[in-house]
Amino acid sequence: MKVRVLIRLKPGILDVQGAAVLRALAGLGFADARELRVGKLIDIEVDAATPAAAQQRVDEMCRKLLANTILEDYTIEAVEAGRLAPRQAVR
Amino acid sequence: MKVRVLIRLKPGILDVQGAAVLRALAGLGFADARELRVGKLIDIEVDAATPAAAQQRVDEMCRKLLANTILEDYTIEAVEAGRLAPRQAVR
Repeated sequence: MKVRVLIRLKPGILDVQGAAVLRALAGLGFADARELRVGKLIDIEVDAATPAAAQQRVDEMCRKLLANTILEDYTIEAVEAGRLAPRQAVR
Repeated sequence: MKVRVLIRLKPGILDVQGAAVLRALAGLGFADARELRVGKLIDIEVDAATPAAAQQRVDEMCRKLLANTILEDYTIEAVEAGRLAPRQAVR
């Protein structure tokens, strides 16, 4: 079962990396980028009987290791077969 | 216009961080995690008239700054209003 975890800093937390990237974009002429935040993406393949079981297991992994729940929020998304490395990705 | 960029190492590239996380998970008893890769998530708000224009602009940003296209693939996803920081996120 393929699962995708998106980990982001909580809204109140200053995203220094995102601010730096935004400034760099402005320097390159991308003044139309108004807001930018950098987070982590984790693609996991879990042995589980059902998507719900997989999500529950990954939720446990997030709380115990993957996310720092004091500073970060996480979202778990099920991924349809074959979409973990999407075909529409730019190579 | 809100856009989400997912940046992943290309399939052939060794993901050292992912391998380390997978070992740490196994050490915590999560032997059911079979494969794991770590990537980057960038949430961007762009000034653009249409979703297509926003995506095209972000594609340019990816090629010029956000992604290292030698090592990484990127995927650009449109985000419905309000879903940049999803409500179903765990706080």
